[in-house]
Amino acid sequence: MENYKQFLVILSSAGVVGLIAIIFAIRWVLYYQGGLAWDGKAAEFNWHPLLHISGFIFLQGVAIIVYRLPWTWKYNKLIMKFVHATLNLVAFIFAVVATVAVFDFHNDANIPNMYSLHSWVGLAAVILYGLQLVLGVGLYLMPFTPVSWRAAFMPIHTYSGLFLFGSVIAAALMGITEKLIFSLKTNPAYKDLPPQAIFVNILGLLLVIFGALILWIATRQSWKRPSEQFLHSLHSDRGSEVGSKVGPSLSQLSDGVEGEEAFGEVRRRNNKFEDQVN
Amino acid sequence: MENYKQFLVILSSAGVVGLIAIIFAIRWVLYYQGGLAWDGKAAEFNWHPLLHISGFIFLQGVAIIVYRLPWTWKYNKLIMKFVHATLNLVAFIFAVVATVAVFDFHNDANIPNMYSLHSWVGLAAVILYGLQLVLGVGLYLMPFTPVSWRAAFMPIHTYSGLFLFGSVIAAALMGITEKLIFSLKTNPAYKDLPPQAIFVNILGLLLVIFGALILWIATRQSWKRPSEQFLHSLHSDRGSEVGSKVGPSLSQLSDGVEGEEAFGEVRRRNNKFEDQVN
Repeated sequence: MENYKQFLVILSSAGVVGLIAIIFAIRWVLYYQGGLAWDGKAAEFNWHPLLHISGFIFLQGVAIIVYRLPWTWKYNKLIMKFVHATLNLVAFIFAVVATVAVFDFHNDANIPNMYSLHSWVGLAAVILYGLQLVLGVGLYLMPFTPVSWRAAFMPIHTYSGLFLFGSVIAAALMGITEKLIFSLKTNPAYKDLPPQAIFVNILGLLLVIFGALILWIATRQSWKRPSEQFLHSLHSDRGSEVGSKVGPSLSQLSDGVEGEEAFGEVRRRNNKFEDQVN
Repeated sequence: MENYKQFLVILSSAGVVGLIAIIFAIRWVLYYQGGLAWDGKAAEFNWHPLLHISGFIFLQGVAIIVYRLPWTWKYNKLIMKFVHATLNLVAFIFAVVATVAVFDFHNDANIPNMYSLHSWVGLAAVILYGLQLVLGVGLYLMPFTPVSWRAAFMPIHTYSGLFLFGSVIAAALMGITEKLIFSLKTNPAYKDLPPQAIFVNILGLLLVIFGALILWIATRQSWKRPSEQFLHSLHSDRGSEVGSKVGPSLSQLSDGVEGEEAFGEVRRRNNKFEDQVN
């Protein structure tokens, strides 16, 4: 893998920032907002930001970059597709429960549903994410789906995934804005910037930084998982060199310097057009 | 150009959606919010959303995709760099004036500045956009900048540009949320979804759709402007075929079927890795 150290630094930064954001969300709802419960009251509402941040943002971010982890390249792509789909499914379940929590809270408190821009963008993101999940499983995990369909939809699948991820973060920023205005009305008001306001504003910034790091990893062509075909041909080349060493194990590839150099070379050739300056 | 019809449909959709968003912003501030002025009052605030939407979002979006317009490929890349930089400079000026407007309004009304997440993300975006502009001019328009620097910074320049564009839209969505809550407090309140609320929520959705279309165009490798080197070599090949036709004009390239097919072929070869399914 090219720039392996840079990859590790950015990946671990994303992990750290994402986990700090979850810790911030936990402290926000437990310390500032009265804790968690499933009672139709404010404590039920609190599941809404917590599950969206931990599931719909953090887990979705992990699901997006799971193919990029070089230590998974020794596993069959199909296994990684299941990991990708499962993480997205868990993120979707978190998102649905988070959405139910706010509807319950609104209904109990006689607050209308679906009036804010936050709710419009947020619910659209949940529905489109569910659609993306169903289409993704249908296209890339069902054995009978024609390869030509898989190829034709891949750019849309990838783009929709990244765009939805960004939209979910944007929806969370709107949600934070709403919640701080509604819960800090007077003594202190949001505009007086009390500790809770600073704390939750920082949470918002952490979500933006997490998004930036995940999208950087996801859009580096040189960090893409090499194609199965390429892994096989590399393996065959090496196999013919070392004589009898032919078998199903591709486990050495991600460790081998030879493999890495070969990846780099092919990548350089194929990325020429992307990295051109003029 | 590959998928030229799809390009035209998406480009014109982006143009239409962006212009409708500007019309919505004009109607919002003129009809619902009391018009425009530069008096430190609400009418000065109104420049804030209007200039951000028309300049910092719409013009920035145009600046991002200006290299992708195939009818500009006949012009020297340097000319297009100036167009790109000028559009970004105008967008930056709009953003600065829009920011001054809200500070003026706050100061006049004794509302604190810089307390909300919207203001933190928004001001960070304006400052980073200014930095991006200065670095962009220094790297890509100063003749003495080493080519190796240009190449090394290009992925960062491109990524930062697209990420900032997304962040500005996210900041606008937070701003819309704030403004609707503050200006629709009672009779009618935002939660009662009066016409202004529906109208401005739709404006928010238009901004999201505009962002989606611009980012789709900007991230299609096959719609990239071909490199100067490639345009030259294609021209030379054609020149040798037709004998004496050698000269500075590359103007036929974007119209010529032969040219388009050649682009397509090279692109196909270079995009193999990107579009792989496995």
